[in-house]
Amino acid sequence: HDVVIRNGLVASAFGAIRCDVGIRDGRIATLAESIPDGAQVLDAKGLLVLPGGVDSHCHIEEPRPNGSIAEESFLTASAAAFAGGTTTTVSFIPQWKGHGVWERFVDYKARAATGMVDHAFHQIISDPTDQVLEEEIPRLVAEGVRSLKVFLTYDNVHVDDRGFIRVLETARKHGCLVTVHCENYDAIRWRTERLLAAGLTAPEYHAWSRPTVVEREATHRAIALAELVDQPIQVFHVSCAEAAEEIARAQARGLKVWGETCPQYFTVTARHMEGPEGANFMCSPAPRDEAEHANIWEAIRRGTLDVVSSDHAASSRAFKVGADFSTIPNGLPGLAARLPVLFHEGVTKGRISVEHFARLVSTNPARLMGLYPKKGVIAPGSDADVILWDPKREVTITQSLMHHAVDYTPFEGMRVTGWPVATLRRGEVVMREGEITGRAGGGQYQPRARYEMASPRGITPNGFGA
Amino acid sequence: HDVVIRNGLVASAFGAIRCDVGIRDGRIATLAESIPDGAQVLDAKGLLVLPGGVDSHCHIEEPRPNGSIAEESFLTASAAAFAGGTTTTVSFIPQWKGHGVWERFVDYKARAATGMVDHAFHQIISDPTDQVLEEEIPRLVAEGVRSLKVFLTYDNVHVDDRGFIRVLETARKHGCLVTVHCENYDAIRWRTERLLAAGLTAPEYHAWSRPTVVEREATHRAIALAELVDQPIQVFHVSCAEAAEEIARAQARGLKVWGETCPQYFTVTARHMEGPEGANFMCSPAPRDEAEHANIWEAIRRGTLDVVSSDHAASSRAFKVGADFSTIPNGLPGLAARLPVLFHEGVTKGRISVEHFARLVSTNPARLMGLYPKKGVIAPGSDADVILWDPKREVTITQSLMHHAVDYTPFEGMRVTGWPVATLRRGEVVMREGEITGRAGGGQYQPRARYEMASPRGITPNGFGA
Amino acid sequence: HDVVIRNGLVASAFGAIRCDVGIRDGRIATLAESIPDGAQVLDAKGLLVLPGGVDSHCHIEEPRPNGSIAEESFLTASAAAFAGGTTTTVSFIPQWKGHGVWERFVDYKARAATGMVDHAFHQIISDPTDQVLEEEIPRLVAEGVRSLKVFLTYDNVHVDDRGFIRVLETARKHGCLVTVHCENYDAIRWRTERLLAAGLTAPEYHAWSRPTVVEREATHRAIALAELVDQPIQVFHVSCAEAAEEIARAQARGLKVWGETCPQYFTVTARHMEGPEGANFMCSPAPRDEAEHANIWEAIRRGTLDVVSSDHAASSRAFKVGADFSTIPNGLPGLAARLPVLFHEGVTKGRISVEHFARLVSTNPARLMGLYPKKGVIAPGSDADVILWDPKREVTITQSLMHHAVDYTPFEGMRVTGWPVATLRRGEVVMREGEITGRAGGGQYQPRARYEMASPRGITPNGFGA
Amino acid sequence: HDVVIRNGLVASAFGAIRCDVGIRDGRIATLAESIPDGAQVLDAKGLLVLPGGVDSHCHIEEPRPNGSIAEESFLTASAAAFAGGTTTTVSFIPQWKGHGVWERFVDYKARAATGMVDHAFHQIISDPTDQVLEEEIPRLVAEGVRSLKVFLTYDNVHVDDRGFIRVLETARKHGCLVTVHCENYDAIRWRTERLLAAGLTAPEYHAWSRPTVVEREATHRAIALAELVDQPIQVFHVSCAEAAEEIARAQARGLKVWGETCPQYFTVTARHMEGPEGANFMCSPAPRDEAEHANIWEAIRRGTLDVVSSDHAASSRAFKVGADFSTIPNGLPGLAARLPVLFHEGVTKGRISVEHFARLVSTNPARLMGLYPKKGVIAPGSDADVILWDPKREVTITQSLMHHAVDYTPFEGMRVTGWPVATLRRGEVVMREGEITGRAGGGQYQPRARYEMASPRGITPNGFGA
Ligand SMILES: [Zn+2]
Ligand SMILES: [Zn+2]
Ligand SMILES: [Zn+2]
Ligand SMILES: [Zn+2]
Ligand SMILES: [Zn+2]
Ligand SMILES: [Zn+2]
Ligand SMILES: [Zn+2]
Ligand SMILES: [Zn+2]
Repeated sequence: HDVVIRNGLVASAFGAIRCDVGIRDGRIATLAESIPDGAQVLDAKGLLVLPGGVDSHCHIEEPRPNGSIAEESFLTASAAAFAGGTTTTVSFIPQWKGHGVWERFVDYKARAATGMVDHAFHQIISDPTDQVLEEEIPRLVAEGVRSLKVFLTYDNVHVDDRGFIRVLETARKHGCLVTVHCENYDAIRWRTERLLAAGLTAPEYHAWSRPTVVEREATHRAIALAELVDQPIQVFHVSCAEAAEEIARAQARGLKVWGETCPQYFTVTARHMEGPEGANFMCSPAPRDEAEHANIWEAIRRGTLDVVSSDHAASSRAFKVGADFSTIPNGLPGLAARLPVLFHEGVTKGRISVEHFARLVSTNPARLMGLYPKKGVIAPGSDADVILWDPKREVTITQSLMHHAVDYTPFEGMRVTGWPVATLRRGEVVMREGEITGRAGGGQYQPRARYEMASPRGITPNGFGA
Repeated sequence: HDVVIRNGLVASAFGAIRCDVGIRDGRIATLAESIPDGAQVLDAKGLLVLPGGVDSHCHIEEPRPNGSIAEESFLTASAAAFAGGTTTTVSFIPQWKGHGVWERFVDYKARAATGMVDHAFHQIISDPTDQVLEEEIPRLVAEGVRSLKVFLTYDNVHVDDRGFIRVLETARKHGCLVTVHCENYDAIRWRTERLLAAGLTAPEYHAWSRPTVVEREATHRAIALAELVDQPIQVFHVSCAEAAEEIARAQARGLKVWGETCPQYFTVTARHMEGPEGANFMCSPAPRDEAEHANIWEAIRRGTLDVVSSDHAASSRAFKVGADFSTIPNGLPGLAARLPVLFHEGVTKGRISVEHFARLVSTNPARLMGLYPKKGVIAPGSDADVILWDPKREVTITQSLMHHAVDYTPFEGMRVTGWPVATLRRGEVVMREGEITGRAGGGQYQPRARYEMASPRGITPNGFGA
Repeated sequence: HDVVIRNGLVASAFGAIRCDVGIRDGRIATLAESIPDGAQVLDAKGLLVLPGGVDSHCHIEEPRPNGSIAEESFLTASAAAFAGGTTTTVSFIPQWKGHGVWERFVDYKARAATGMVDHAFHQIISDPTDQVLEEEIPRLVAEGVRSLKVFLTYDNVHVDDRGFIRVLETARKHGCLVTVHCENYDAIRWRTERLLAAGLTAPEYHAWSRPTVVEREATHRAIALAELVDQPIQVFHVSCAEAAEEIARAQARGLKVWGETCPQYFTVTARHMEGPEGANFMCSPAPRDEAEHANIWEAIRRGTLDVVSSDHAASSRAFKVGADFSTIPNGLPGLAARLPVLFHEGVTKGRISVEHFARLVSTNPARLMGLYPKKGVIAPGSDADVILWDPKREVTITQSLMHHAVDYTPFEGMRVTGWPVATLRRGEVVMREGEITGRAGGGQYQPRARYEMASPRGITPNGFGA
Repeated sequence: HDVVIRNGLVASAFGAIRCDVGIRDGRIATLAESIPDGAQVLDAKGLLVLPGGVDSHCHIEEPRPNGSIAEESFLTASAAAFAGGTTTTVSFIPQWKGHGVWERFVDYKARAATGMVDHAFHQIISDPTDQVLEEEIPRLVAEGVRSLKVFLTYDNVHVDDRGFIRVLETARKHGCLVTVHCENYDAIRWRTERLLAAGLTAPEYHAWSRPTVVEREATHRAIALAELVDQPIQVFHVSCAEAAEEIARAQARGLKVWGETCPQYFTVTARHMEGPEGANFMCSPAPRDEAEHANIWEAIRRGTLDVVSSDHAASSRAFKVGADFSTIPNGLPGLAARLPVLFHEGVTKGRISVEHFARLVSTNPARLMGLYPKKGVIAPGSDADVILWDPKREVTITQSLMHHAVDYTPFEGMRVTGWPVATLRRGEVVMREGEITGRAGGGQYQPRARYEMASPRGITPNGFGA
């Protein structure tokens, strides 16, 4: 073997097993009670051996129509990912209204190749023209893009019901998953106008502009239209009990509907948006309160929400400004902090098992995105993406540990127990004790083939279109 | 007393009481164990004495932008109403896109004055401009119009979420109820296009174009936006368990959300739309199947649906034509048949009590529309709108008994037990044994004042706008 | 007319109507816009005219096997009832284990005849022998006893599942309602033993001995067995959301299951049982907390709980003693305070309408007990049981206003708005401004005939026994 | 390695992975992409490699107070188990009323040692005396018995609520799981008496005697009392939606409540009990109908029911007789057929994945019984209990393939796709192509230590006893 990890507790989807892990040619070659040989030997005594994190929702190096580009590059994002135990990202190819997507895919794939993290892409659809749906998407699918992202809000990217239905229909035809940002566009616009007219412009009114009911409405609508078309969807960044309940109802009816949440939805509250640093905590859906944090944990426990991603979407503080809350850029940096924050709040505090943790950050997103079993599991034949995790190490989260491009972390000062000691990506140690040892360009594109979880059920009204 | 009704079983909201009813000056003056005097005496031995029907959802004499007018005039509609025991209608003032509403109100009020039935109006809002919302609606409210009707589907009249929210906001400000036709516009358009493209154009595919999920989606959305704005709504013509469940959930949370259904949703099925006479049974939402009929009865039993109106919206057979199902006029004539069909299916078949029947067709719509206690109850001081109803009389429904303008009834040939023997409107016998004895112009406009059921709860997100 | 009530707002099940009420021969003879004549005229200007309260759950003058008798006699109870606006009681004929019920009925009926309040009886069944079920109950039913009461807990009276099933079966056969005290006997015994063993003997541990889960368990069991046998039941004194939810689920399935609550379950908390006066607040189920009070209101609002009775079961403070909480007599005096406390908490605080209030304290219990429309409504032909109620009068509840035999009220010092000014029982003024003007022996026994609400649905497993 | 399994698709809890399996000293030593060496090599090309079945609910060789013993011996049961791919059983130590349990444990352990299958035991508690609970159970626990079984029905073994609570309390103290047969004893007795009195004595009336509501009642009660005591339970042999719903509600509240079902509850109907062979299909709960079969699959899909065991409890046809249905021995033989029937109905018919199948028959029961990861998974260090399974082989189930002692199978003639080709128990091939190659006495007792799933949550009412 090229690398042998000895004496660890391998905590993957099959529970925690004490065994050695042998790596050869970048893949897990062997799991055994004892593996003697190995060019490189890592002693994992006292450590957990976890599958590398899969962050299936993070915004990296997205170019905008005006030529500007998101601060976070694939290189800095890769460093942040490795620092936090993540080895695979699924980030977003933009679509600019009035433009196609193929050009953006080519450009974005080239950008991603400059980073270090393994990567796949969602294609955002903000302008679902016939050209895009009928000609370009088939080409993207042939290139291994298997998920389409739709926003039901935001001025520049939102699609209406007709556009959303057409994306669902196209995804169904070509075997893609659809991921959805669920908030009601018109409702938010109306509340925002009324708030601004009342002079309530500070960042904290961002939360007032988009209460839970607008998230619930859009969640139910997305589910209903997906049910009509018979297309699997994942609801992104669920922040409240009401939206989670809609997902749970859909799942109970047997629909292919999944729900994701993010660390900010069980750690950050609307009160963080008060005061001079308030803009640093703005994201959408808006942070809620402690009661909703508990609700989110309940939804995780019940399995309604089965993926915890970062929704990393970062701007440095200098850019977190605007005339009022409606013009301040949204999004929080969380690539590096995702696993430590979840481990601390979940495993250390006794809410979930280590095995459940591994599923939430790695196995489940890998499965749902069609990356499994290459990613998301420690098993013979899988990519040797592995974290050595010290469940007892206490660390205070601070900006310098995050390795991302932006200049703050919303988790600054949070003391957590549980921390990644080393990260291996395809058998290569790319992070050790906080030092990033990967090299630029080392990340691989992960094309995805048709897969079961994204396949329709074959159940449509009157059997028409099934 | 001008009129005394003797020996009947007075079945109003307070149960069935054996007493005499004394009428003076068009109002109920006296309920008593025995009333000796009376200029006119009606013997109700063996009969039920019921409050006159209030049909809070019927389309009468609506003018269209092209100058044409719906076949049913106020005069023919009044005859149909009296024939079936209905004494009050709430019909619809149209709005034509690009036009205001005040002119339409003036015109429509004049038309209504030519009929015989007492009447109030919903104002349809299909073009919620500032002019309409801010200037014209206050004038209408001052004239006693207290309900605004919104369509979430249909090419010519549907409003988008923004328009709907603005209507809700305006209704809230002025103390109006909002009534809603709940089906998802884009979803129906998409299904329709796909069906027509597949050559499925016959009337029966009308049902395929708008399955229950599109009704559920729009129902949930209407409720969510009403919850956001804090505005009471009534969901019109609920046809299926899924939509009823959304209403029940809203009611359980304490929202002011009510649900209506119509006789066609527990008697007509999608199969009626097959064959050469299929177009005669087309309405929206589309007729479902026997399982949904049972679900609707269950929702009535539980109180989720508390009003049964006709949604009378009729075209004669010669007009029930089109290039395909999507261009055939929707709507069924039901003004006259509403009470007999419900009584037979409900009371005669043992599903509901006589008292529950009276609430569904009279008391509840009167309360919800702000007409109570002038209408909807037999009590001292109320208008003397009374039906003498023979619960044992067997009748076969046929077109000649309907007295409406259009040339068929979808209930042709249905044998029912229970039939109105006489109808009194404000103390005047306007129907006796099927003969219409009212005179043209005898109907009164019923302006409505601000009322409790249409008042907001005062609960909004963050307390903003409460 | 013998009596005319003028100018009041008659708030009965049909809403609030401004009319006069004419009384003749102890019955409501006339409701009219205006009634000129009358031997006695009561001016109800500014007052509500309500149907007399029906307290369908109160313990009065129950004899015990040892020869002792509950403190509250029919005479004192009648005074308390009239003082609080109640004109009809349904109290309990005891059964002593090892004894029959016929003798007890004869004795109890004679006792009741000495009071002033109109009265009907539940027969407690604590020893369901063949003799009792097959021979004595038919005789009681012939005498107009139409409800059987079962305790699922309490050492001296509880029946096991077999006994309960036999009571249900017997009630079904003879057309009686079954009312049930739902708490799990063995669970309470076990908790009590463990608490006493741990030295936790003070009154407050009464609440610890019977947490909500024991009420929920017994409620579900009672419902399930009633469903098996196909027998209507009323669940007594629901104190918590969990039990109410079981009732709501049963109602949603269409079962004939009703739920009652009492004023103590939305005013008294477990904390009242702490300290030296703690025993004065002991009842079963035990008082809960403010969160459960809100839950009870929610269940009232939704109609899950549709009767508010007193469960008057009183002992003076000298008797509220024992070796530990398990030997202190249970029960609170509430006959007089029931209506004022509910009116204040419900109507004055804006939670329910006056009409809903009248249903909860009068119409609904009258209907459910088969006393309607003789009792429970102001309508021609009904008994002239009427309260003149001042909705604006502020009163501080105190023992001297209660008129009951026991020496305290748990509501001492509570300031309420809304108070009965006068009470009429069958047309006779029996209370005026707190002065009791009825005469001993004036109360009438109210035998009950077979009635619809207590009739089985005819739905049994496999149709066996239907 | 002693044994190497090559070229198979290893379908365990971590999904289906194509890898080789190396076995040494009876344990899984290695999982690797390729394992070259091995004393014995098994080619699994085209086969699934599954963890050996764990049947956590089967009745084997139970002695009765009268000296007779169940027909199925540990030797015949082992043959049946191996024939069907099961390598571990959890069977029942009886308790005879009036007797203790230690003697029975000693006797039963000796009997089990004569078989071939690995084995653990539930201890039935039918007479929960202080002696048994306080002295004997601790001794059993020290010997590795970690589950107590309670019957809520059956004349000879049922315990009342008090007995059940005491068992829960004892289990909690010593860290045992409690498993429960949930049907209401008194309700079944009552229905049985009424049926027999009506002359309805044939086997088919067994189903009439115990409708779903008696199962639901007991399930809810078991859950409520377990909640009161704070003790994890598994509800045995769930047969209907109503009972499954109670379990789902409990799980949604976070309680440690699990549900099991058996193949008969999705294959056998009440109609099988009609006719001369009807007695062969009698078991309790009784077989239901096709609608309930679908409900059971739905509950499996949702995870409410997560174990499928056999409830093997067999009598040959000569013993399946009685004066009436109530005296015919209950129980069906299913040890051998469990996996093939579930695989066919589940995997072959597309309802569940292979991975889900492995969880239902092996991983989940192993976890819940505290046998994991020694049993229930193919992972380094686990016992080498392995099935080679041909997912394509079509077999008609017939008695001669079952290898059990009793003389029939209820699945006779059922054609299934999917069949075990070979079974390994701790690395030894004990079945190959239907031939049993194990030797008597080869089975090992599996003592169990305290484990997480059986540990209380620490949540009790008022925190008392937590
Ligand atoms: Zn988003
Ligand atoms: Zn995002
Ligand atoms: Zn409509
Ligand atoms: Zn309409
Ligand atoms: Zn009680
Ligand atoms: Zn009581
Ligand atoms: Zn069993
Ligand atoms: Zn069993």
